[in-house]
Amino acid sequence: MNKNKIAIVGLGYVGLPLLIEFGKKYNVVGYDIDKKKIENLKRGIDETLILSDKESNNLKKLKLSCNAKEIKQCNIYIVTVPTPLNKKNKPDLSLIKNASKVVGRSLNRKDIVIYESTVYPGVTEEVCVPILEKNSKLKYENSHGVTNHENLFYCGYSPERINHGDKKHNIKNVKKVVSGSSKKITNKINKLYKSIIPAGTHVASSIKVAEAAKIIENTQRDVNIALINELSIIFSKLNINTEQVLEAASTKWNFVRFNPGLVGGHCIGVDPYYLTYKSKKIGYTPKMILAGRKLNDNMTVHVSKKIIHLMKKKRIKLYNSKILILGLTFKENITDTRNTKVMDLILKLKKIRSKIDVYDPWVKKEKFANEKNFKLINKLEYKKKYDVLIFAVGHKQFNQINISRIKSLLKTRNVIYDLKYILPASIVDGRL
Amino acid sequence: MNKNKIAIVGLGYVGLPLLIEFGKKYNVVGYDIDKKKIENLKRGIDETLILSDKESNNLKKLKLSCNAKEIKQCNIYIVTVPTPLNKKNKPDLSLIKNASKVVGRSLNRKDIVIYESTVYPGVTEEVCVPILEKNSKLKYENSHGVTNHENLFYCGYSPERINHGDKKHNIKNVKKVVSGSSKKITNKINKLYKSIIPAGTHVASSIKVAEAAKIIENTQRDVNIALINELSIIFSKLNINTEQVLEAASTKWNFVRFNPGLVGGHCIGVDPYYLTYKSKKIGYTPKMILAGRKLNDNMTVHVSKKIIHLMKKKRIKLYNSKILILGLTFKENITDTRNTKVMDLILKLKKIRSKIDVYDPWVKKEKFANEKNFKLINKLEYKKKYDVLIFAVGHKQFNQINISRIKSLLKTRNVIYDLKYILPASIVDGRL
Repeated sequence: MNKNKIAIVGLGYVGLPLLIEFGKKYNVVGYDIDKKKIENLKRGIDETLILSDKESNNLKKLKLSCNAKEIKQCNIYIVTVPTPLNKKNKPDLSLIKNASKVVGRSLNRKDIVIYESTVYPGVTEEVCVPILEKNSKLKYENSHGVTNHENLFYCGYSPERINHGDKKHNIKNVKKVVSGSSKKITNKINKLYKSIIPAGTHVASSIKVAEAAKIIENTQRDVNIALINELSIIFSKLNINTEQVLEAASTKWNFVRFNPGLVGGHCIGVDPYYLTYKSKKIGYTPKMILAGRKLNDNMTVHVSKKIIHLMKKKRIKLYNSKILILGLTFKENITDTRNTKVMDLILKLKKIRSKIDVYDPWVKKEKFANEKNFKLINKLEYKKKYDVLIFAVGHKQFNQINISRIKSLLKTRNVIYDLKYILPASIVDGRL
Repeated sequence: MNKNKIAIVGLGYVGLPLLIEFGKKYNVVGYDIDKKKIENLKRGIDETLILSDKESNNLKKLKLSCNAKEIKQCNIYIVTVPTPLNKKNKPDLSLIKNASKVVGRSLNRKDIVIYESTVYPGVTEEVCVPILEKNSKLKYENSHGVTNHENLFYCGYSPERINHGDKKHNIKNVKKVVSGSSKKITNKINKLYKSIIPAGTHVASSIKVAEAAKIIENTQRDVNIALINELSIIFSKLNINTEQVLEAASTKWNFVRFNPGLVGGHCIGVDPYYLTYKSKKIGYTPKMILAGRKLNDNMTVHVSKKIIHLMKKKRIKLYNSKILILGLTFKENITDTRNTKVMDLILKLKKIRSKIDVYDPWVKKEKFANEKNFKLINKLEYKKKYDVLIFAVGHKQFNQINISRIKSLLKTRNVIYDLKYILPASIVDGRL
């Protein structure tokens, strides 16, 4: 087994932890098309803050490259590239297709290609395999009867379960679903992952079942958050404190606690569209999943309206009003701002021609230097300057701010809107 | 405290266990408008099979009546009547209104009326309290400043959490939410319930919060089952085994296992409509909740189409075909057939002019003697008689039937459709 040479293709929040863990037991090569990232990683710098300091330091010992030649000698390829959406909210498979091209060109007979990227059921075998075949001139062995072809390669699918920013659940302590193109290959892939994951594996009966299992995980979260968002809209109209209702309901054994909020990022807000895309293609337009997506996507409309309503109620002039938003990333305690819904909220609040400052201790100022809609500030100024304060992300730093400090950020007449239950309900003007 | 004399108004699956538990420590009177039920209960007969034999026997010692005079001396009234829907899927509050009338007429100053029925937020104080006031000529003391009125009465809301047919979760081991019209009364109600519930209580900050907490519990279940039903529709089109997908996804720490199925009965299929009714009234038409309701209500269309499709595929003549349905109740291991969706399925399958037998060991034949759409049979005939077999309810008895016995119910060419994953996927023709 330890003769395996493993290429990790794509070194983001999924690829990096895999590289580190496989790197402890196997020959590994980390491959990414991003030159600057590779240079940083070689120096032990993980700008995404996903790895621990020790892990980042370990990177220096590993083979890292943006040159596809370096993965040619590998016999196992694990593809972990992102699967985002295009502007029409349809799957953008260009990255996984390109990765398949690169891998295809490196492929030798009996090699195994394992995909970890989130996809709709069928992508591995219907989209990626043909690209691998074309670029390798080899033949894919699938479970439906083995071809006599001598030059076979194999595939697997093992969905990533990395919860970005979550230190409690990691690659080692979360069970991993594995699947392969045949029983023999499934066993091999299973052994491979088991060797680095103490929590163990769950063997799915087919690649499609594993693909489907992954896509429904985040779909379920999205739909559930949408439901709670809807409840918070209803309860705010009824003057009922949503948090108190959720607390009471959560004392029932089968109630599942979800919180209202903005759903951005590259997982929960994206994955459902992959499934609905495939579903529509085969003639069924999903009702629940699309209703959830629509509701969550529209939450910034609801929140911005609420805030503007509160400003008017308190007779705060909208034009030129000064708004401070705490948090810009799509989730708490991460540096990632991809597809953050805070940006949507900013655009909506910008319409009243307000001046918006954003403070986020996790985001580098340089990154938003050319931003016209808001100013990313480095530190908070306690000068009673702002008309409106919005808690948009639940970063741990914000949970520690004390209330009198918060008050000294604001003018006497002010609006505090708390999307993340950071402050007690009694001292804010609005919350979800 | 033990001077309390408690009336339980409504002796169904909610009232009966309360009566038994309060009866162990307090003076109680069980009241119901159903004469026959009272007569039976007096003889220790619980036709709903909710109580244990010992508990049923204990009924003989308790005061039970359908005469409203008998509750006049009580000082605490607990209302547990059903809150069903009318034909337009709108709340039918007639029973809770009538109960409030009866209680109102019995009410003395300082008495407490506690509602356990599931309602939308506001029913207790906006619908029931005015009826209590009118019929008692007393005044309701609420939290918004006490009136100087001397003739006050008090209210509370403590939602029932009885899970019909579930022997694991009962009145004693499930935490109970309590609330009251003022702090003092909330404390009193809290102590009262704590005295009979070892699992303890959760004190909600207001009656409305407690009402809202209850209504969202089943709403969440309904929406989640609807999502899984939708997934099963998609996966059946993709030839993916839904159960295997759910098993794989369930190995993730935050995936919540729900199963596809028909949603009938008087809770999950009803409660969401209470919330959507109120929500629409205040100007918001729920998207998620109504999408869930619609999807679950339409599952019988999906299932009947599937079955008919399978029959055609196997060249089974539809006209005069013989169909056996196993299970009629709205849920496994209960006698309750109220709003069972199996009835809907029967009506849909009746359209092909098939002959339908239904076997349900939990349901008494007499109850459906005049039924025209199907015949409720007393025992199974293993005579290779049926073209189609449908597992509709997951009664424990069905889980024990062996496969060769099942085959001997059916003609050689047959369709087995399994809504409840009772048989292995490999030997059935269709499942959710």
